Amino acid sequence: MDFSSKLLENAVNEMSQLPGIGKRTALRLVLHLLKQPQQHTELLVNALHTMRDQINFCRNCHNISDTQLCEICANPNRDASIVCVVEDIRDVMAIENTSRFKGQYHVLGGKISPMDGVGPGELTINSLVNKVKEGTIDELIFALSSTMEGDTTNFYIFKQIEGLDVITTTIARGISVGDELEYADEITLGRSIINRIPFESSLKSN
Amino acid sequence: MDFSSKLLENAVNEMSQLPGIGKRTALRLVLHLLKQPQQHTELLVNALHTMRDQINFCRNCHNISDTQLCEICANPNRDASIVCVVEDIRDVMAIENTSRFKGQYHVLGGKISPMDGVGPGELTINSLVNKVKEGTIDELIFALSSTMEGDTTNFYIFKQIEGLDVITTTIARGISVGDELEYADEITLGRSIINRIPFESSLKSN
Repeated sequence: MDFSSKLLENAVNEMSQLPGIGKRTALRLVLHLLKQPQQHTELLVNALHTMRDQINFCRNCHNISDTQLCEICANPNRDASIVCVVEDIRDVMAIENTSRFKGQYHVLGGKISPMDGVGPGELTINSLVNKVKEGTIDELIFALSSTMEGDTTNFYIFKQIEGLDVITTTIARGISVGDELEYADEITLGRSIINRIPFESSLKSN
Repeated sequence: MDFSSKLLENAVNEMSQLPGIGKRTALRLVLHLLKQPQQHTELLVNALHTMRDQINFCRNCHNISDTQLCEICANPNRDASIVCVVEDIRDVMAIENTSRFKGQYHVLGGKISPMDGVGPGELTINSLVNKVKEGTIDELIFALSSTMEGDTTNFYIFKQIEGLDVITTTIARGISVGDELEYADEITLGRSIINRIPFESSLKSN
């Protein structure tokens, strides 16, 4: 792309560094900002700058939080003995939306992925292992996505805490509520048969 | 969406003001910035701020430009007597890419669209009419997209310069090179038959 302005070119180049934003989309976004009053750009720029500059993480669960201890970890009604291990804040938000989990979280900050240069040291695994060693956690629920990286991360953590006095579980994999069996993939359908549950308990979980 | 951090919520809200960016996409983009070194955010923020603050428009064609007169208008080899009327910088870039146009441009900055609150006063139509009145322009090529708003804008400008000594043309509408006739819409195909050209001139334009 040949730009008639270096300023515009710079803005488009930086915008297109964001994931899923190509040069064309970046140009569309930047031209939109130019059409709006200058104040719109200032609000965006300030929000991004302030966030990146002042962002904080909960010292217990490592979720993004404006306070030292996030709302969930600071809530005395949440059960600190059950900890759900997730990848990032989006998973916390998704599980919180269900209103079905009353324990605490541990946010890893990613999954082990050598291809992307993410080893165990980049994640908050040590902090999790230390929490388990303190002996206050009864159950660890693995809720990472079921991919090669997710499974690797689960297994790595499992190995680190092997022998310690903690139960490890993983969220159920199966056919989504409302899905047709014929369109389900074989692995999911197979697992849902092997890990079938008593019909009575399925009634309770509605 | 329930955010655990006001800073994050602010950033996501501002980001989702951009066209085509929903809350979920905005969250993905913002979390990406958080995973990158702080410097990435600073580069983006500075590029956007500087652009919005210092952006300039060519005083002749109103295209975005870092100089008072853009490169095209300042180029003595471009024919100032043929002016192509376009909506915005993207159209200039698209036509420049073809290397087929050696005249100058006039960037309107949009199309007349009462639904979006854009009247003739918001565009650079007056400046165009004045240029035509000066008598240095021989031909005006309308190259707006062929929509209701584009047609309205063309017609409005046409009425403003009626009676002045200038030829007005519009870019050819027809079947795209490489397209199958059976998939073309009726209006385009119909126009391409009515506005057929001598076979010999089609050989020259390859």
